[in-house]
Amino acid sequence: MSAALATPREGSETARLLRSVAAPHGSGPDTDRVAPWLAEYARTHRFRVDRIPFADLDGWSFAPDTGNLVHRSGRFFSVEGLHVTHPEGPFPEWQQPIINQPEVGVLGILVKEFDGVPHFLMQAKMEPGNPNLLQLSPTVQATRSNYTKVHRGADVKYLEYFVDTPPERVIADVLQSEHGSWFLRKANRNMLVEAVGEVPLEDNFCWLTLGQIGELLRHDNVVNMDARTVLACAPAQPATSALHSERELLSWITGERARHDRRVRSVPLAGLTGWERGAWSVERVPEERYFRVMAVSVEAENREVAQWTQPLIEPIGLGVTAFVTRSFGGVPHLLAHARVEGGLMDTLELAPTVQCTPDAFRDAAPAQRPPFLDLVLDAPKQRIRYEAVHAEEGGRFYHAQSRYLIVEADETEAPAVPPPGYRWVTPAQLNSLVRHSRYVNVQARSLLACLNTAAVTP
Amino acid sequence: MSAALATPREGSETARLLRSVAAPHGSGPDTDRVAPWLAEYARTHRFRVDRIPFADLDGWSFAPDTGNLVHRSGRFFSVEGLHVTHPEGPFPEWQQPIINQPEVGVLGILVKEFDGVPHFLMQAKMEPGNPNLLQLSPTVQATRSNYTKVHRGADVKYLEYFVDTPPERVIADVLQSEHGSWFLRKANRNMLVEAVGEVPLEDNFCWLTLGQIGELLRHDNVVNMDARTVLACAPAQPATSALHSERELLSWITGERARHDRRVRSVPLAGLTGWERGAWSVERVPEERYFRVMAVSVEAENREVAQWTQPLIEPIGLGVTAFVTRSFGGVPHLLAHARVEGGLMDTLELAPTVQCTPDAFRDAAPAQRPPFLDLVLDAPKQRIRYEAVHAEEGGRFYHAQSRYLIVEADETEAPAVPPPGYRWVTPAQLNSLVRHSRYVNVQARSLLACLNTAAVTP
Repeated sequence: MSAALATPREGSETARLLRSVAAPHGSGPDTDRVAPWLAEYARTHRFRVDRIPFADLDGWSFAPDTGNLVHRSGRFFSVEGLHVTHPEGPFPEWQQPIINQPEVGVLGILVKEFDGVPHFLMQAKMEPGNPNLLQLSPTVQATRSNYTKVHRGADVKYLEYFVDTPPERVIADVLQSEHGSWFLRKANRNMLVEAVGEVPLEDNFCWLTLGQIGELLRHDNVVNMDARTVLACAPAQPATSALHSERELLSWITGERARHDRRVRSVPLAGLTGWERGAWSVERVPEERYFRVMAVSVEAENREVAQWTQPLIEPIGLGVTAFVTRSFGGVPHLLAHARVEGGLMDTLELAPTVQCTPDAFRDAAPAQRPPFLDLVLDAPKQRIRYEAVHAEEGGRFYHAQSRYLIVEADETEAPAVPPPGYRWVTPAQLNSLVRHSRYVNVQARSLLACLNTAAVTP
Repeated sequence: MSAALATPREGSETARLLRSVAAPHGSGPDTDRVAPWLAEYARTHRFRVDRIPFADLDGWSFAPDTGNLVHRSGRFFSVEGLHVTHPEGPFPEWQQPIINQPEVGVLGILVKEFDGVPHFLMQAKMEPGNPNLLQLSPTVQATRSNYTKVHRGADVKYLEYFVDTPPERVIADVLQSEHGSWFLRKANRNMLVEAVGEVPLEDNFCWLTLGQIGELLRHDNVVNMDARTVLACAPAQPATSALHSERELLSWITGERARHDRRVRSVPLAGLTGWERGAWSVERVPEERYFRVMAVSVEAENREVAQWTQPLIEPIGLGVTAFVTRSFGGVPHLLAHARVEGGLMDTLELAPTVQCTPDAFRDAAPAQRPPFLDLVLDAPKQRIRYEAVHAEEGGRFYHAQSRYLIVEADETEAPAVPPPGYRWVTPAQLNSLVRHSRYVNVQARSLLACLNTAAVTP
């Protein structure tokens, strides 16, 4: 039999996406019209989010036996307890609440060429946990419950492009982890899908180029986390040389995973060591730290369901999420951290150089502070290649904001041979790793999205 | 700073390994001397394995609360219960015993060039579950317990080559899953490491070329599973064209993982639905099927500990593990199955076309029989490109033997557009996927090892 065999087209795909990165204008709205468009949408659509006591949750309750916070349908998600041991880490053993949501959701962005330039279909979407409620989101952001109609609400727009997609239309399609400190083994399907033919434009959607999205990523809280993680998966980084070959990099990750004997087991939320349940929150005692579990009531007009209540996770304090960067041989590199988290399926993933809440270390001795934190916090303005405040997923996290930074350093601050657990990688290497699951964590993917869209000053 | 940047060398590595594949003789023993060498070793080293009742286990017992079979040290492994739901599968819900061994072991083969040809250092090693006790094993086969000296026994030979290995010596280094039906989320580190300088040769070791190992893989029960999985990771397949691009293949795997909503939770071994504990075994009731948990006593001279007892898993019946193969556009392809298993960390991995115990389907209606099973069982001799009986890991499985086959088919038997859950892939694509964790299951890796070493008739 003679068959048409596939030839790789990764290189040409990158060249095509780079045309979109280079496009400051597109066939949709001008970039400076996006914020007013979002504001107008917010004015005409009523959203209201109120903090409520757990007793006012509708359909949610603490299970009598375990104290886990569960929905009466058994669907959506639950808040449970996790016991973690990690003898090699700064905290050898701890317990914490964690969200258990085993089902895989879809985060999808539809892509279409206008005048030879790929455009990305972005959605103005309200999420209760967003500090400003409304942000730019992927075309489709659907839990399995969504698309199997558990809500019994309206259909998810454009979902049909992401179901049974013909393989030649797929630009990227990969399961990616979400926050390992707050989710137990959670993964979502990140998809970039090319549309052919006419695509009807719904009124809370717009087509933007990667260059436009990059410009918007320089502003606080405009592009949501779900959009950022999908954009990280766009094959938009041309191959370069690197300090370490891919084989060396993979071997280093394998070694780090083998070195850390992190073990987890699910435990009841009731009686979790170091945590206490009040009427309004489950929080850490004796002093509040890390995060609390709380609940909100939501009223919205543009959602599948117009009114609902739900639990959320609310971090304590503003985070700092930063890559330290240096050039080696003229090629920019990022200092990746092989970071262990309790909820990650696979022990650790590559994280930014710094990922923490500085408040939690306010009183810590210098030796106890996370490596490179002070370098990032004290960086003079001219060393900062990128800075913006972004929120994490507003459907699960309440006002979970972090300063995202890319900060230049030198050999004395960040040596070419970094401490154990750290390694210099290129953006192209991260971009290659995100073709596979569980190499690059969601925070690092947010910063990779900024690199993919040229939001970062060279 | 000017730095030496890495350039990829995968292509040249493959060319180098192909010299080893093409070498029917090496600097070590002739291939036909290996079996007598193993036999001589077996004659001069006393091994004895006896089936014993659980009551005779030393250091192992059923925990009073859960009934889990555990070691008093809390180390090594335990046999627990697993509850699996998989609504999309032929069995939507079941319970089963499963081995929980969270620690990562090392399976490593040392590689060294003699006269420009890479040789692989293989070990004659006894494992209690091997049907013939002694097989060719990797240079190093060590649990974390081994190398942290839990046994308080002798050192593991050559282990130093696989600890803190300089990156440029690493040929392959990846965490790979083990049997998803018998192990809960088990992974081992598979390593191929290049040695430089003189390597002292211990008396139960020998250097063999890949071509010699390929010849030995044509014989039953000579090359053990641990060696096979490591050899699968050798980058020995030159790139070819393929029916589906890598991007399409990755997207298909992502889609299959999203489609199957398999969920698992650990449950006590005591009271497992459908299983009963007797004095000698934990077995399926009302009729024995799949496997039983049993125990053995072992006496050996060449092990770190000379006498011990341990539980093992004993499958019921001889398995069949087969890839169906076809050429498309002159390029051989294998029909991979996206196979869901309860213990896999990531829902499913690519498995051989057929992987089952035919006895379990003796009385099944034709529609209930696994796809392609009869094609494989009824294949005429001239269609069989490879056939040998191999055992699974003899440290955990007792006489777990399977007929490994590669069988040629045509369009009527195995169409270019196969049923859902199946996809044609090239050996080079599998060889590329095994650079990453959890794409290719251990049974498929065994057959890939046969392809990598040219044990398969073209």
